[in-house]
Amino acid sequence: MPRPDEHRGVTPAAVADRYAAIRARTAALAEPLSPEDCCVQSMTEASPAKWHLAHTTWFFETFVLERFEEGFRPFAPAYRVLFNSYYNSIGDKHPRPERGLLTRPPLAEVLAYRRAIDARMAAVLARRDLSAEAVVLAELGIHHEQQHQELILTDIKHLLSLNPLQPAYGKTPESGSAAPEMVWMGFEGGTVVIGHGGEGFCYDNETPRHRVLLEPYRLASRAVTNGEFQEFAAAGGYRDARLWLAEGWDWVASAGRSGPLYWRRGGGEFTLGGVVPRDPGAPVAHVSYYEADAFARWAGARLPTEAEWEHAAAGALPVGNFGQDGRFHPRAADAAGLAQIFGDVWEWTQSAYAPYPGFRAAPGAVGEYNGKFMVNQQVLRGGSCATPEGHVRASYRNFFPAAASWQFSGIRLARDGL
Amino acid sequence: MPRPDEHRGVTPAAVADRYAAIRARTAALAEPLSPEDCCVQSMTEASPAKWHLAHTTWFFETFVLERFEEGFRPFAPAYRVLFNSYYNSIGDKHPRPERGLLTRPPLAEVLAYRRAIDARMAAVLARRDLSAEAVVLAELGIHHEQQHQELILTDIKHLLSLNPLQPAYGKTPESGSAAPEMVWMGFEGGTVVIGHGGEGFCYDNETPRHRVLLEPYRLASRAVTNGEFQEFAAAGGYRDARLWLAEGWDWVASAGRSGPLYWRRGGGEFTLGGVVPRDPGAPVAHVSYYEADAFARWAGARLPTEAEWEHAAAGALPVGNFGQDGRFHPRAADAAGLAQIFGDVWEWTQSAYAPYPGFRAAPGAVGEYNGKFMVNQQVLRGGSCATPEGHVRASYRNFFPAAASWQFSGIRLARDGL
Amino acid sequence: MPRPDEHRGVTPAAVADRYAAIRARTAALAEPLSPEDCCVQSMTEASPAKWHLAHTTWFFETFVLERFEEGFRPFAPAYRVLFNSYYNSIGDKHPRPERGLLTRPPLAEVLAYRRAIDARMAAVLARRDLSAEAVVLAELGIHHEQQHQELILTDIKHLLSLNPLQPAYGKTPESGSAAPEMVWMGFEGGTVVIGHGGEGFCYDNETPRHRVLLEPYRLASRAVTNGEFQEFAAAGGYRDARLWLAEGWDWVASAGRSGPLYWRRGGGEFTLGGVVPRDPGAPVAHVSYYEADAFARWAGARLPTEAEWEHAAAGALPVGNFGQDGRFHPRAADAAGLAQIFGDVWEWTQSAYAPYPGFRAAPGAVGEYNGKFMVNQQVLRGGSCATPEGHVRASYRNFFPAAASWQFSGIRLARDGL
Amino acid sequence: MPRPDEHRGVTPAAVADRYAAIRARTAALAEPLSPEDCCVQSMTEASPAKWHLAHTTWFFETFVLERFEEGFRPFAPAYRVLFNSYYNSIGDKHPRPERGLLTRPPLAEVLAYRRAIDARMAAVLARRDLSAEAVVLAELGIHHEQQHQELILTDIKHLLSLNPLQPAYGKTPESGSAAPEMVWMGFEGGTVVIGHGGEGFCYDNETPRHRVLLEPYRLASRAVTNGEFQEFAAAGGYRDARLWLAEGWDWVASAGRSGPLYWRRGGGEFTLGGVVPRDPGAPVAHVSYYEADAFARWAGARLPTEAEWEHAAAGALPVGNFGQDGRFHPRAADAAGLAQIFGDVWEWTQSAYAPYPGFRAAPGAVGEYNGKFMVNQQVLRGGSCATPEGHVRASYRNFFPAAASWQFSGIRLARDGL
Repeated sequence: MPRPDEHRGVTPAAVADRYAAIRARTAALAEPLSPEDCCVQSMTEASPAKWHLAHTTWFFETFVLERFEEGFRPFAPAYRVLFNSYYNSIGDKHPRPERGLLTRPPLAEVLAYRRAIDARMAAVLARRDLSAEAVVLAELGIHHEQQHQELILTDIKHLLSLNPLQPAYGKTPESGSAAPEMVWMGFEGGTVVIGHGGEGFCYDNETPRHRVLLEPYRLASRAVTNGEFQEFAAAGGYRDARLWLAEGWDWVASAGRSGPLYWRRGGGEFTLGGVVPRDPGAPVAHVSYYEADAFARWAGARLPTEAEWEHAAAGALPVGNFGQDGRFHPRAADAAGLAQIFGDVWEWTQSAYAPYPGFRAAPGAVGEYNGKFMVNQQVLRGGSCATPEGHVRASYRNFFPAAASWQFSGIRLARDGL
Repeated sequence: MPRPDEHRGVTPAAVADRYAAIRARTAALAEPLSPEDCCVQSMTEASPAKWHLAHTTWFFETFVLERFEEGFRPFAPAYRVLFNSYYNSIGDKHPRPERGLLTRPPLAEVLAYRRAIDARMAAVLARRDLSAEAVVLAELGIHHEQQHQELILTDIKHLLSLNPLQPAYGKTPESGSAAPEMVWMGFEGGTVVIGHGGEGFCYDNETPRHRVLLEPYRLASRAVTNGEFQEFAAAGGYRDARLWLAEGWDWVASAGRSGPLYWRRGGGEFTLGGVVPRDPGAPVAHVSYYEADAFARWAGARLPTEAEWEHAAAGALPVGNFGQDGRFHPRAADAAGLAQIFGDVWEWTQSAYAPYPGFRAAPGAVGEYNGKFMVNQQVLRGGSCATPEGHVRASYRNFFPAAASWQFSGIRLARDGL
Repeated sequence: MPRPDEHRGVTPAAVADRYAAIRARTAALAEPLSPEDCCVQSMTEASPAKWHLAHTTWFFETFVLERFEEGFRPFAPAYRVLFNSYYNSIGDKHPRPERGLLTRPPLAEVLAYRRAIDARMAAVLARRDLSAEAVVLAELGIHHEQQHQELILTDIKHLLSLNPLQPAYGKTPESGSAAPEMVWMGFEGGTVVIGHGGEGFCYDNETPRHRVLLEPYRLASRAVTNGEFQEFAAAGGYRDARLWLAEGWDWVASAGRSGPLYWRRGGGEFTLGGVVPRDPGAPVAHVSYYEADAFARWAGARLPTEAEWEHAAAGALPVGNFGQDGRFHPRAADAAGLAQIFGDVWEWTQSAYAPYPGFRAAPGAVGEYNGKFMVNQQVLRGGSCATPEGHVRASYRNFFPAAASWQFSGIRLARDGL
Repeated sequence: MPRPDEHRGVTPAAVADRYAAIRARTAALAEPLSPEDCCVQSMTEASPAKWHLAHTTWFFETFVLERFEEGFRPFAPAYRVLFNSYYNSIGDKHPRPERGLLTRPPLAEVLAYRRAIDARMAAVLARRDLSAEAVVLAELGIHHEQQHQELILTDIKHLLSLNPLQPAYGKTPESGSAAPEMVWMGFEGGTVVIGHGGEGFCYDNETPRHRVLLEPYRLASRAVTNGEFQEFAAAGGYRDARLWLAEGWDWVASAGRSGPLYWRRGGGEFTLGGVVPRDPGAPVAHVSYYEADAFARWAGARLPTEAEWEHAAAGALPVGNFGQDGRFHPRAADAAGLAQIFGDVWEWTQSAYAPYPGFRAAPGAVGEYNGKFMVNQQVLRGGSCATPEGHVRASYRNFFPAAASWQFSGIRLARDGL
């Protein structure tokens, strides 16, 4: 989380505009969903869309309005507990596995809650004397909401995937594509600098910017495709213990996996557009870290470290497939050079999520944002087709447990030396 | 399940009328519920209201229309699996713990399903040449639906009870009542006859009517009240191992119980009308078999056997508090003699649920209705404030596992001798 | 538990003799076992042999010596908790699932504990002024120890069965036998009397003797054999849901069962003499209630009630295969008439374990012996090849949960009518 | 694992001597234990001492004798599966949670197995033409056995700690000590080199030696003491969510922890010498990574990275408290400067266990030694009072999951800057 005084350049007016746009997009994402779709929780790790809609609103109410609105009164006192996610400093929180039990408040009331907070936020953001801290917190809330936009999509995908009717959320993805040949891109390494260093927003976990020593390495020019991953599976990859981390091998057995999460027998794949034939040229998605690691070993390669990834990505603009076509599904690479760095699929790195040298969490409740998850998680980089455009950057660190596969998580290979 | 030829007396027209009335009542029970309320499953043992609405409809479609409607075509082929409860003979069934994941079909579509089947059932039931078997199956479906009417209420009560907002389903129960003094009613016993013997409908588990030998016994004139149960709790009943069955003692610890399921600290009770002060004169409800048994031991009494209960109830008309006031909550007894035999609360008996001598399950899928649950369940008798009026009778056998307490289950005491 | 004044006929001298003999037999049963064998607990339901050796001794120390020995001092104060099984009235008890963690005291010390208590018991039982109550409690302790003799065998069988070396405890059972044809034996029923009524010892759960009304019924002349059960399995019995109780069907899946507990692929069976070819004529053993019930349904029969069983057995002397050959394995029937009533295998009945009319548990800690288990258990009758000779009788009620199969539990079929 | 050709300097004779000495020490460690103590498994993560005794022997039999002994015949074919730990390449393995069920073979037979393999190993190691690969594998087996020596102690400590008798394994630790004041030792950092670089043995996970960039940092001069950790607990450290990683906070609740694993109420601590008063000056031991991390945060510090630790330790000889006094318990620091780097307690680092740049696992089964555990583990450094003297070195990487606390794991604090 950025310190309040670091972002003087952001004007309240710009934030107010972004606030309105981001909030409208969240509502639009929930548009195709019924009240039932928005209410049910498909597993502990996922949350109902209604909860996402309310929790993001709670964030603004709690961290901005409660501190900076005159005469603040809570929209509904019970929401303070109901829609707190994990901020222990704020007080009690409703247990995560029971988020799906909240049939009340109904969706309509949560949407009303959003509108009410939006109006009050607009008023606060229009104040001339607004403190820099308030602006920074509003900015944080906007980025926080963008993260939940992605989770709305991945959580609803998980829920719908468990319905025998296999319903579609939206448009059907294209199929039948071919990916360009994968080539190795070399990097000399040396003492490089990573971490956020520019003007714009970043999370606290991207700081401080610091030096890292890299040996020469190569990265694959694009993400591993469905077709390539199918070769691994067909070659018995899921049945050869030597390819797997010990935990991964146990996970294959206990989770009963023989392919990525949404692959279906007979060549199909469940997508946000329903079940479609798997696109051989599109990046494989919804693999766990264990699967990514095993594939890399089978391919005679390895996963990149996050520093290798960031160094390679440092010069690139964050452009790519962020679901702008409304399909929210990865597509075959169509660019030369280092393609698909941003968008399509999050790329598992071999780096455990840990504090950067000199890292300090922000004081207060917002300091609970990132640091407290720094154990037993792997870093992913680059964003996916479900990530909001403009949300990621080269220094952005996403993180999930090794077994997680309901995100659009994929694979980019790396190798030692040039 | 009655044999087809035993019920010639029931006319199709009478069944058609009952069909329409019962189906309308089910819809009315779901009226106060939002689509979200109807979708969520609060625990494995409970089902969503939407599932109840669909499953009862599936029953008529599968067991009546599929066999007796000309040119039968399923409303939606997928429903055959989705809304099958446990009839293995019918084919696959959707896993019970995942009933709450079915956000699709939406509530509106399930209501449309109901209307469509109702129209087709009306046409079939109007046929002059309708076979006796079809009438019997329709009759069975009606009684089946009444059972689910009760479950809609108890399942939604459980769901709402877990919501921190503690929402009300309907009207607030009355409070502050006083129960008449409990007196012992004596029965001489001897060789008596139990089981269903009359003209009307019954389930197969109530047959055959048979002789039982009873020693002299006494029954309490009314159900145990909240006030009486409060004495037990205040006297340390939940902390004295000697009062409990071994399994019950373990259950108290593992379930963390110190009072009936819906009692709240400070004298409150969660009801279908929200949290209210506990009514001292009303029957205690939502106790497990373990609690009923421990209370009886503490009170120097025991629970009745189902034969003792049925023999005592044999002469009584099934009248009582079946929620006709729309409050769906037990009320203090107001009658002299053997009061509250029917309605208010189901009464735990010390009888395990077992086949009557000579019992034979009906052939085919409907034979899966009762017999296959005859292990590790205790029989309850008499109906509750959530049971549809007209559904129970003296020979009616309800059954639940000893740990179950989300039904309106209460206690009537018994003693040996006159 | 018998009341003290009911057993005046038993002389202290006779009890002292029986005490010595029973205690010596327990030690002999443990003789073939190593200290390791005696220490390990293979599952929560089973106990280590060392624990059985100590707990039975604790029983005499606590219920006899502590009350009737002058100047009583405990052998080791810690044993009061360590070797208490479930008597909550006595105080704390060591958690059952952790019995296998007690590597100390070592076996040698537990054997020394036995010898010390034996000497003190001998002194007490030799006293001329010994009260009738002490004699009754010693008698109870003897029968209690006999129950644990059986458990030593069944628990060690379970432990050894899990060892890939499949070690033998003792002699190899015979094989290749043929059973006489099964014939139906008819009983007219009527008002009969069951429960213990004679002079000798009985447990409290066998009382009071009382009348029961039985309809005419038939019992199979012998137990179901391995060969017959093999037909059921070969005919797909484990894959046909219609044959099973609903709980049983779930149990087949969750326990992964396709045959009795100790059957091995290829026709073998694990026995206390190691793995041997299954004896087709010997009674099938180690089936759960679910399997017994499913087999009976497949065979067009049912399981007997405990009253039917006891009425049929009432005239018979308790003679049979109680492992007198040191093989502790069921053998093919070799008698005409109603064979194998006693010994070979415990016979599942369809009766849930419940108090007899007028049952009252004994006061004090020994009253915890039986009554508190009267829920979710099925009654078994007749004793097995692991039951000590002289321990069972026609009125004896054994009980286990429906899923239990590590006892020598088998099947006798019954039918309605003559 | 070192490559065969890297260790030409080690003579077979030297290995033979070390082999004999290490094997004798293992047997000596098991000396105080009864057959029962050696058989029981107290939790899935721990193994029985008998299993350790056999598995280390299996290692030599499988990786040395099977390949390099002429006319090799297995000691007992079943042991190949029974005592395989996790080498999937070798074939089936006995399930880890069932290691405690192996009452057979008895301890005496496992000791005979050890003697037999020792004789055959001596013969092989005496061969003049022995290949370098065999020597390297024998050396690996020796180090492997040393690891299991430590586990014998920590696993038996866990087992005995669960016994209500709280038995002692060996000598009572001293108590009442005072630690020297903690001071901060500064390191300038820069581009340093870590990883194994010398002549002697190392595991594959310590290689390749490589450069790392370190910012200036400080390390505490000694380990955190019981007295200091007591302050943390007394100050409510276990009840303040802000101090904990999110996973750690959940772990405190689910594990029910309010102090280190072996702390007892009233100031006691369970040790391998029984329960003794906690020594305020001795290093706190048996804390999880979560506890170490929370303590550091409370103390305004952090845990070191493994590179920081190794750089600081690089010049030090591996001397310290390795239990040479036979007490196997940490003692107060008694040296100036950077004390307790080696011995006393393993020191949690904030580094997740990951491959060094350029790491390649050895080919074949021994390549399963380290690499396959490189996820969801934290690195610990420095050895403990239970580590065999001579086993550790500055580059040694131990690793355990964050929740593990049955090892002698403790805390050294670090800070940014000089």
